Amino acid sequence: MHKVPREEVQTHVARFQDAMKEHAIDAALILQGADMFYLSGTVQDAVLCVPAEGEPAIFVRRCFSRAKSDVTFGRVVQFSRFSELPALIGAAGIDLGSTVGVETDVLPVATMNRIKKALPKPGYVDASRLILACRSQKTEYEKDMLRSAGKIACEVFEQIPTMISPGMAELELAAEVARAARLAGHQGAFRIRRWIADSCTDPVVSGANACLTTFFDGPVGSPGVCRAIPIGAGTKKIEPGEPIMIDFVFGYEGYHADVTRVFSIGDVDGSLKQAHNVAIEVIRMVESMLRSGVIASKIYHEALAIVEASPFADSFMGVPGNQVRFIGHGIGLEVDEMPVIAPRFDQEIRESNVFAVEPKFFLERLGGVGLENTYIVGEDCCENISPLPQEIVVV
Amino acid sequence: MHKVPREEVQTHVARFQDAMKEHAIDAALILQGADMFYLSGTVQDAVLCVPAEGEPAIFVRRCFSRAKSDVTFGRVVQFSRFSELPALIGAAGIDLGSTVGVETDVLPVATMNRIKKALPKPGYVDASRLILACRSQKTEYEKDMLRSAGKIACEVFEQIPTMISPGMAELELAAEVARAARLAGHQGAFRIRRWIADSCTDPVVSGANACLTTFFDGPVGSPGVCRAIPIGAGTKKIEPGEPIMIDFVFGYEGYHADVTRVFSIGDVDGSLKQAHNVAIEVIRMVESMLRSGVIASKIYHEALAIVEASPFADSFMGVPGNQVRFIGHGIGLEVDEMPVIAPRFDQEIRESNVFAVEPKFFLERLGGVGLENTYIVGEDCCENISPLPQEIVVV
Repeated sequence: MHKVPREEVQTHVARFQDAMKEHAIDAALILQGADMFYLSGTVQDAVLCVPAEGEPAIFVRRCFSRAKSDVTFGRVVQFSRFSELPALIGAAGIDLGSTVGVETDVLPVATMNRIKKALPKPGYVDASRLILACRSQKTEYEKDMLRSAGKIACEVFEQIPTMISPGMAELELAAEVARAARLAGHQGAFRIRRWIADSCTDPVVSGANACLTTFFDGPVGSPGVCRAIPIGAGTKKIEPGEPIMIDFVFGYEGYHADVTRVFSIGDVDGSLKQAHNVAIEVIRMVESMLRSGVIASKIYHEALAIVEASPFADSFMGVPGNQVRFIGHGIGLEVDEMPVIAPRFDQEIRESNVFAVEPKFFLERLGGVGLENTYIVGEDCCENISPLPQEIVVV
Repeated sequence: MHKVPREEVQTHVARFQDAMKEHAIDAALILQGADMFYLSGTVQDAVLCVPAEGEPAIFVRRCFSRAKSDVTFGRVVQFSRFSELPALIGAAGIDLGSTVGVETDVLPVATMNRIKKALPKPGYVDASRLILACRSQKTEYEKDMLRSAGKIACEVFEQIPTMISPGMAELELAAEVARAARLAGHQGAFRIRRWIADSCTDPVVSGANACLTTFFDGPVGSPGVCRAIPIGAGTKKIEPGEPIMIDFVFGYEGYHADVTRVFSIGDVDGSLKQAHNVAIEVIRMVESMLRSGVIASKIYHEALAIVEASPFADSFMGVPGNQVRFIGHGIGLEVDEMPVIAPRFDQEIRESNVFAVEPKFFLERLGGVGLENTYIVGEDCCENISPLPQEIVVV
């Protein structure tokens, strides 16, 4: 466990301050975990105040002593009620100005109302988009954390063949994978921005269970063990000849690698093998295109061209009728970051963007195949931080 | 895995409708997982519309087929954009009226704005308080689910002595406990309402690590493995003579049992034993008082009287300076429910309330002791759904 270096936090803050100035935002109030960590190096029950100019201050309800120990840039101030904020912000030498940014995509209405009541003068605008744009371009420090997460992923996936035995339930395998992940250094939880995904668990699914679409808008289906947590591994027993899809997120010092591989006890059906090979073809094409300056949607359409030339277009990224329209998502302090490799995402991919690319096929009654790697985008290439064999692993 | 029975969902909806009528709310729009499950029997990316009178309708973005299979009461309608809601709600025969309830404590500002844009006519008020009040009184069906969760808790805690060995890291033990929990039928994730608690993991802590206060306002401290996820088990090795506090949440069909026990390799320090005995004394007193009609704060003050007569008042529910002021919290579909056994909670406890009661002490440099059980309140007694031995388990 280490502190985020002071220069690192300073870099993040400076980047966000540039974005604020460009958008005429005078200050931002940050309450959400991933954003707070990015801009301060700590995650507490706190309000982080970042002015467009000057040092930030974090007002900590709980736990002050840990914030004090974590934060290397800016002031750390104890507070207990929102009504104290005007005086404390003033005492920290910060002027909120007339336009304050907040995280509208995650901040609850009641919390926003409490902020407005305590600080009624400024107008409030969204700052999440700006923070996410800053976060999308990783620093060298962040790349190192991501590489460590990728290393944990590889270590765990290499152990998986020894964990699988016929007749074991999906959830038994999921429990083994989760255990191995923690022992390998995974931080034990992962962050996802979408508030509806509060109960997400990692899918470890076999056979047709991968075709059970969930509320979550990723490609992999899963049953979960009950209707209250309707996602993740189920009680189904793993049988020979079925594809076993393991889509797992590994976190290191806050940064995530998202990796999928398919395993099977004995050979799977020929159509599954064929579809898996198309997924490998897609990911190789993506690897050849993924570099600074390429338009994200262009990669998506090139991938789709390969898929549409195959017999599996109807099964790409979901079962027919429930297909999702992307092949890669940004990843970093959260699993769902910017940018996205999807139609209409016509923005240029930049050096130091990081993507989880996941071409997958879901053949009804048979199951899911395909793979997922996490890549760091370079100037004229990309770096796969989860360089595992791509074929279906037959155990 | 079973469906929530139709009569059960009808009971929840009827109860919420009575509360809406009493508060002049004409309809409610529900988007959050636990509330949606309570009022519909499903959790999807959806908007559940409950009128104050008549059947609810759920507008499902993803996954429609699973909602269709889960929901046994009310209409299930496919939708994709908020702008379609006025027409779809009208077609379902629902009139939103002039006052609509929403979950202001969890609904993000941007989502609220999207709802207001699509449905600008009504005024919006908080409905979370009403839903939480309904949810606080469990039905017979819910009590059965809770008992099953308690049974899983007992099964896992009984195995823990065999998992502990000197020199193992806290996170290794945490991984074993999590694995055993899934194998015993735990649903694999738990729900917590506080949005700041997105990355919570269960604390498995040894020695002084239990004194490391976290951002979370429970009594148990923990280090986590990194500053980005600063909670839960750490890398510290477990040594003989230290208290090992295991505070774990077990879910069954959405309903949670929250249980804590302390283990040790060999005997712990006399002061820890003494403090643990005070915790047992407190929980016995609570067991004798916890019944329909008692004022919640009265139990808290009685507990505090026992604690203040002991030498450990400064260490109750946290290390000095970071003590939390409650001894029990409601629990059900979420781990943090109503009511709370705390000062100023002067409401009457009612039959079928459910509480996790957790008197705990944190002795600096030594660690945490105490225990936690989950109780169903009866007319003139309470039922402990986690009836494990209360003493420190020496292994």
